[in-house]
Amino acid sequence: MAPDRLEQQIRFILEIDALKGVLRRSYVLAGDRPENSAEHSWHVAVMAVLLAEHANEPVDTSRVVRMLLVHDIVEVDAGDTYVYDATGSAGKAEREKRAADRLFGLLPEDQGREFRALWEELETGRTAEARFAGALDRLTPVLHNAHTAGRSWREHGITADRVIARNSAISKGSMALWEYARSLIEGAVAKGHLAPAGT
Amino acid sequence: MAPDRLEQQIRFILEIDALKGVLRRSYVLAGDRPENSAEHSWHVAVMAVLLAEHANEPVDTSRVVRMLLVHDIVEVDAGDTYVYDATGSAGKAEREKRAADRLFGLLPEDQGREFRALWEELETGRTAEARFAGALDRLTPVLHNAHTAGRSWREHGITADRVIARNSAISKGSMALWEYARSLIEGAVAKGHLAPAGT
Repeated sequence: MAPDRLEQQIRFILEIDALKGVLRRSYVLAGDRPENSAEHSWHVAVMAVLLAEHANEPVDTSRVVRMLLVHDIVEVDAGDTYVYDATGSAGKAEREKRAADRLFGLLPEDQGREFRALWEELETGRTAEARFAGALDRLTPVLHNAHTAGRSWREHGITADRVIARNSAISKGSMALWEYARSLIEGAVAKGHLAPAGT
Repeated sequence: MAPDRLEQQIRFILEIDALKGVLRRSYVLAGDRPENSAEHSWHVAVMAVLLAEHANEPVDTSRVVRMLLVHDIVEVDAGDTYVYDATGSAGKAEREKRAADRLFGLLPEDQGREFRALWEELETGRTAEARFAGALDRLTPVLHNAHTAGRSWREHGITADRVIARNSAISKGSMALWEYARSLIEGAVAKGHLAPAGT
């Protein structure tokens, strides 16, 4: 083993520690602070293991898990972009591409290529694994909002039509999870935790 | 799909959100706060993907990853036990067994059995995957201490002989990573970040 190969791997591992400091808009369920992208990545990877049976198509669960472990690493440089923030979303693709170049470029070339491919696969949603991983990634804020009285939806003035427009793509990965998410969204509207469309 | 199966899975997923609030003794590298067990689990799972080539024996990486995603879930009930805390370690096994009964018992029976088996496998270290996963889990605090000037070692008055005694089991999973860890430990002593034996 070339020692510099291990050094490159460790350098990357140390660098991505910063994902623990990238804050999302969702709150942890204990409610005392926003969730960060590293702990979110763990949570959604566990969800992949448990919920794979609900995917529309058979999926290679271990690839879904890898995709989810890697999917937010670009945020170390690019930050988390709130999905309902049109201004932030405008430059997102370019910011994240530059981040991918730098961060995955720290790795040995074969592993940098593998991680980048996993990240791009999820972004483009071209495979069954990517569609299912994307469904889980969208499901998490719905779950968190449904169990924190719609806290981040309310803080950002998000209405039900926008939540549905954003999250209907869950159905591409899992009809069962989309039906479940829709029932949570309807429940949140009924409880007054999410403003109805046009309000 | 029985709807109560999905409900059981979601119930578990919501319950383990609390792992984001279980604090370890190590600090995030930014240094502003202790690391929690959820973000640690993400970090060490990514390490498994990148470092599998350094395992002593060939390992099924996806099983190592699953083991590491699951390995700290019992801490939701049992809390994190500092490895150098002899008093806390005394009741650890029983606390964690009760936690496993309750938490994995929330899942559909087949998945509860699978998660429990993954957790027990890592605890007992009987397979190549468990030995490698255990090596990575031990490596992380050495890495974190080496890059935070030995902060948690110094706070708890840990000496080099104890660090070596605790971490030499890394060699059972990966000689290459143990050599690397030993060089970090020696470097920390040389820099005055870790007290030598018998001090």
